[in-house]
Amino acid sequence: MKLVSFRHAEQDSFGVATDNGLIDLGPFSSDVGSTLKEALARNTLGAISAIARAADGRLEWSEVELLPVIPDPQKILCVGINYLSHVKETGREVPTKPMFFTRFADSQTAHDGPIVRPLASEKLDFEGELAVVIGRTARHVKAADAFGYVAGYSCYNDGSVRDWQKHTIQFIPGKNFPSTGGFGPWLVTPDELGDPSQLSLTTRLNGEVVQQATTDDLIFDIPTLIEYCSTFTELHAGDVIITGTTGGVGAFRQPPLWMKAGDVVEVEISKIGILRNVVVDETHGSRD
Amino acid sequence: MKLVSFRHAEQDSFGVATDNGLIDLGPFSSDVGSTLKEALARNTLGAISAIARAADGRLEWSEVELLPVIPDPQKILCVGINYLSHVKETGREVPTKPMFFTRFADSQTAHDGPIVRPLASEKLDFEGELAVVIGRTARHVKAADAFGYVAGYSCYNDGSVRDWQKHTIQFIPGKNFPSTGGFGPWLVTPDELGDPSQLSLTTRLNGEVVQQATTDDLIFDIPTLIEYCSTFTELHAGDVIITGTTGGVGAFRQPPLWMKAGDVVEVEISKIGILRNVVVDETHGSRD
Repeated sequence: MKLVSFRHAEQDSFGVATDNGLIDLGPFSSDVGSTLKEALARNTLGAISAIARAADGRLEWSEVELLPVIPDPQKILCVGINYLSHVKETGREVPTKPMFFTRFADSQTAHDGPIVRPLASEKLDFEGELAVVIGRTARHVKAADAFGYVAGYSCYNDGSVRDWQKHTIQFIPGKNFPSTGGFGPWLVTPDELGDPSQLSLTTRLNGEVVQQATTDDLIFDIPTLIEYCSTFTELHAGDVIITGTTGGVGAFRQPPLWMKAGDVVEVEISKIGILRNVVVDETHGSRD
Repeated sequence: MKLVSFRHAEQDSFGVATDNGLIDLGPFSSDVGSTLKEALARNTLGAISAIARAADGRLEWSEVELLPVIPDPQKILCVGINYLSHVKETGREVPTKPMFFTRFADSQTAHDGPIVRPLASEKLDFEGELAVVIGRTARHVKAADAFGYVAGYSCYNDGSVRDWQKHTIQFIPGKNFPSTGGFGPWLVTPDELGDPSQLSLTTRLNGEVVQQATTDDLIFDIPTLIEYCSTFTELHAGDVIITGTTGGVGAFRQPPLWMKAGDVVEVEISKIGILRNVVVDETHGSRD
């Protein structure tokens, strides 16, 4: 099953994505929750599946504006260096612990939404990643049990403002500019996706492949990440773990390759789909 | 004016701290908001001041359980290295940009609440700090205008699990264990506090002074921090900027000084007051 968050007729809602349109779960909110995060917390995906099989009506994709898969995660935990090929490119040593930083929810943008290049920098970079969405409260979870806490998977573009990321050793500023982190198009549930360690991940900038990897190149796999995170913080339904990017980012190219207004950036993951964003400049109005 | 968040009769509320008890603003929530964060967002401190002057009833301190000053900030931004004396102790160079990391709201604990030493580590350290609470939405704020966005000040103990902080170069894991960040006892408004660059800050562990500074030793002052933060993220009412710690932390002592169960740690800031916490061990039950 594929689940989407969207806006339709000036209402935020969520629904099931099908080959011929969207099933709006808004009319069933008392049964299943009024957001995808709430549906996960209430564990209503069985009911949603039944509704999807029975439902007649469909919204056309053109009728809705997608939202980030989870528009307001309580916690977004991102792994810094987690593909061997990216480690080599950065010149760092292979890490012995996963490197976690965070994004705020308002740094996200939806599939087909804009990625905003801030006025403060021209060094806006892409990072195609596999996102894991947590399905229920998780603390002190062992790796062997970790998949029981996964609600599903999506594509993420961990858009990074490189000079601000490198002002100090802490990445936070460069990872939190508003509307720089693409998240979409939908959540794919584990029963549909299968083995998340055998996915191919491709990032394209204006149609050209700039990153390519398979998730078996992850240094710390998903269960290990969940065990580690859930030791230092409690995870909740709708929280997101972004599993790290692979080689090919613009910052390490010669010359560097920065995203600019009008660029189209896509993150494609097998068995999930394509997250597409167009880069726009921050408007001067928002600075004054 | 001093404002507190607290729990009384199984209800979360907030109120005004006075010399002879607390004025509960719960009965006035439709006028002033039902939380301190909401009061700041609705800009109702004038009304609160009027209510405080008129109110008869007081709650005794013993009747309430304090909550963190803002229990659920949307964003908690912490500065890593911001006192010259602490820079010297760490052996780092004097930074040219403020070093920001983040805490999750559930890493906080209230005045008189427990600081929890996790099962995962014995290296729990204190960091006494001045906290700045944001009063209204702030983006692209210039330093010259920054004090107009400050709702007030409080004490913070940026409790740190040092081995987890140093697993990688990103501090996040060591700064986010549940109930490690003391925040209290109250918010002191700028009209009452005066100049925040002339405050003395003292941390005591079991009565012994372990950190001592004045805020004029800050490398990046409060307006500079607000300008920097508000460039890369939008701040909102109730968000917290923790301005960094001074020399004397346990990790850099020989031998290191770690907090353990039963320890009493206090952060005292002139014109604010004393934040006091008792260290407890994480119970084994929460791991299983």
